[in-house]
Amino acid sequence: MYYLTDDGKTTLYRQLYNVLREKIISGEQKAGTKLPSKRAMAAQTGVSVNTVDSAYAQLVSEGYVSVKPKSGYTVCRIDPVQSVRLTKAVLPEKKPEPTCYAVDFDPSRPAVDRFPQSVWQRLSSQVCASADWLLSGPRQGDLALRQAVAAYLASSRDVHTRPENIIIGSGTQSLLTMLALLLENRYTFAFEDPVYHRCAELFARIGHPTLSVAVDKQGVCLDPIGDLSPALLYTTPSHQFPLGICMPMQRRVKLLNWCAAADDRYLIEDDYDSELRYDARPVPSLFSADRNDRVIYLGTFSSTVSPALRVGYMVLPERLRSLYMESPLPLSCNVPVSEQMVLTRFLIEGYFEKHLNRLRTYYRKQRGFLLEELQCFGGMVEPIGEAAGSHLTVKVKNGMKETALLQSAAAEGVRVYPISPYFSGQMPQKYAGKVLLGFGGLSREEIRDGVARLYRAWAKR
Amino acid sequence: MYYLTDDGKTTLYRQLYNVLREKIISGEQKAGTKLPSKRAMAAQTGVSVNTVDSAYAQLVSEGYVSVKPKSGYTVCRIDPVQSVRLTKAVLPEKKPEPTCYAVDFDPSRPAVDRFPQSVWQRLSSQVCASADWLLSGPRQGDLALRQAVAAYLASSRDVHTRPENIIIGSGTQSLLTMLALLLENRYTFAFEDPVYHRCAELFARIGHPTLSVAVDKQGVCLDPIGDLSPALLYTTPSHQFPLGICMPMQRRVKLLNWCAAADDRYLIEDDYDSELRYDARPVPSLFSADRNDRVIYLGTFSSTVSPALRVGYMVLPERLRSLYMESPLPLSCNVPVSEQMVLTRFLIEGYFEKHLNRLRTYYRKQRGFLLEELQCFGGMVEPIGEAAGSHLTVKVKNGMKETALLQSAAAEGVRVYPISPYFSGQMPQKYAGKVLLGFGGLSREEIRDGVARLYRAWAKR
Repeated sequence: MYYLTDDGKTTLYRQLYNVLREKIISGEQKAGTKLPSKRAMAAQTGVSVNTVDSAYAQLVSEGYVSVKPKSGYTVCRIDPVQSVRLTKAVLPEKKPEPTCYAVDFDPSRPAVDRFPQSVWQRLSSQVCASADWLLSGPRQGDLALRQAVAAYLASSRDVHTRPENIIIGSGTQSLLTMLALLLENRYTFAFEDPVYHRCAELFARIGHPTLSVAVDKQGVCLDPIGDLSPALLYTTPSHQFPLGICMPMQRRVKLLNWCAAADDRYLIEDDYDSELRYDARPVPSLFSADRNDRVIYLGTFSSTVSPALRVGYMVLPERLRSLYMESPLPLSCNVPVSEQMVLTRFLIEGYFEKHLNRLRTYYRKQRGFLLEELQCFGGMVEPIGEAAGSHLTVKVKNGMKETALLQSAAAEGVRVYPISPYFSGQMPQKYAGKVLLGFGGLSREEIRDGVARLYRAWAKR
Repeated sequence: MYYLTDDGKTTLYRQLYNVLREKIISGEQKAGTKLPSKRAMAAQTGVSVNTVDSAYAQLVSEGYVSVKPKSGYTVCRIDPVQSVRLTKAVLPEKKPEPTCYAVDFDPSRPAVDRFPQSVWQRLSSQVCASADWLLSGPRQGDLALRQAVAAYLASSRDVHTRPENIIIGSGTQSLLTMLALLLENRYTFAFEDPVYHRCAELFARIGHPTLSVAVDKQGVCLDPIGDLSPALLYTTPSHQFPLGICMPMQRRVKLLNWCAAADDRYLIEDDYDSELRYDARPVPSLFSADRNDRVIYLGTFSSTVSPALRVGYMVLPERLRSLYMESPLPLSCNVPVSEQMVLTRFLIEGYFEKHLNRLRTYYRKQRGFLLEELQCFGGMVEPIGEAAGSHLTVKVKNGMKETALLQSAAAEGVRVYPISPYFSGQMPQKYAGKVLLGFGGLSREEIRDGVARLYRAWAKR
């Protein structure tokens, strides 16, 4: 018996399909038996032959029923899907809700209100007006964007390369993943310690040995990796994160000569916020001092536009470019074409340079303001590292350890950031009492209020 | 001697910096010697003390010179960067310039002129108007987008999941990379053969064993992987690529029960163009028939909007979600926040559904038109596979093998696509004579012209 009614919700064909499917799954309509002919079924149910035809076609296309010329519709054998008792999934415990902070010195938050939004909106609208952004581009990224990046790198970072050697990707993580996948020969991935070391985890997962290398006053030390080959050394020479060291020329030369001494060594120069320096002109890149094509250069628009943009670039030495070109890996560019097109216009029409200059001036002033406010501590809070970026690393000399500094600040409604998570092991004693204060996303009022609260937390005990 | 001139090109401070740096690098100004005081240098060169100060500061910040209170500026020891003779890089040979085709049956080209550009442009402009798109979102992707995707999946694919189990990523490649990195326990990655097998290369690089599994008339066969565990089986049940098979329910049940029989087995259901079916309603997903939370569901906006959008999603079973939540890997969402926000509006304001319905109608007609045109071959060209997607797989029964089919078509100015590259080894004999014809990006005139040319190439011999 079939009860089909035109209830305005489920089409008649769907109702018939549902009823029949249920009968087949439940075994009421047995495998090997035949369904009534379409005409008979139509008569039986009072719907049109067309409706029956649609329902039967759906059952056939899903494999519940088979059809052969002259022998009609036969029910297929469908085993039930077994249900097993699952090993109980280990659910992560719910993290406690974050405290709501009055002032958050988040080092990764950019000054979004400084960005020329209306310009971006206009360029974006221009790009959307044609259909070009719906067509896939080359896997290295749009040629026009790579040309614009090459021109920018040549003028601002003394990085002279060809668009052919540039790969556009959705940020440093994504480009490092690609690099780690490309290098088959199990390179030792040596990295500065402290560092954003999820990257090391990435290389480890892909089977590369990893090695953490301590940082001294000049930056990453070379001794622990002296003999390694093949090897990659990951470094942030312009502005060590999170210590803020700018690597002097002597150390740079040492690194370059270490590379040159064996065939399979590369430096990965992560130049993440080299554009934001306040004391002098940006320091030339490691890449520009190289004579042997051994520096893999990484840059990003995260600090200059926003991390939410998800665009970075990697300059590959010639030998690695060959590896890339011939790789059987899926390596399509993972940045949307539309965004690449908008960014290209933003660069070649001069808006980026203008924005960068303004941003640098703005951050310099904000940084100066924060330093001034910190004067209230007397010598108790001392800024360390170079004048660069949109955060300050400070040493708090009140005897508190990192956890105490964070907790007492939180009790006053202020969030400051630890540096210990960036060490691969236990943080050495000498770094105790250091915390990060990001100022990029804060107004002067917020900075003043934040410092006053920190004063209550750290000085008035 | 210093020759500094105000030539309007290089600032005086930069000229002085360049001269001094050159002297230090060349050894003319020896390590350990002192630079003249700022005042003396200013007198010597005729520039201001401020200018000298800038040049000195730059040299200090780059480590060429060190400064100490009361002892002035001392030149540092800088070793020369050694230049080594590199093993000659093996440059890829330049590929011959592609022939310019009159008609290109590109299966990956969507119907870009069908996309509601002005809607996207407007939504995009709305998103750019506020600064929210410059703020980083959660690593799984924007919550609103995940909610919209969950609602869409429930209504269109019978995939019922929570936003918490959805990961937004820049397409299938990128999401599979993440999955391969997440699974530490060396899962065997079994994949349908033929397949887009660069994905297998990805799993292999990360250390997972891989295994190609033949496809019969019902889709992927289970026998070769019967005992494997832990294991993943990658499959395209709705529309096998490139053969076009829609997996019937019996086979689906077999796969699901294979999974249920061991603790560490998962199916990866790549539902890449399930939305584009023309004969009946879309076939329910494998995910919807699962009772044991063992299906990893992959979807993408590549076929419905464009591959250039670079957005896809992955639904993770609960156990893998826990793995994801606790992973120490860098897993930030790699889709720009702005694009996520525009796409969210496109989905929840109903534009996507409208577009999809129109696109389906358009493709159905285009496909019908192509089939009609192919009638001129009589029975020589036979379409195979289900009526779905924006390409047709055809069997050409004129005795030509794949290479001959491609070459003779190219000689008439038409590009058609081979299926042999999708086989992991030698293509079995039974698939000879099959080629792909994409019709998504072609007008009727182009289809007619293309088929006429194919007729000259394949039938008139």
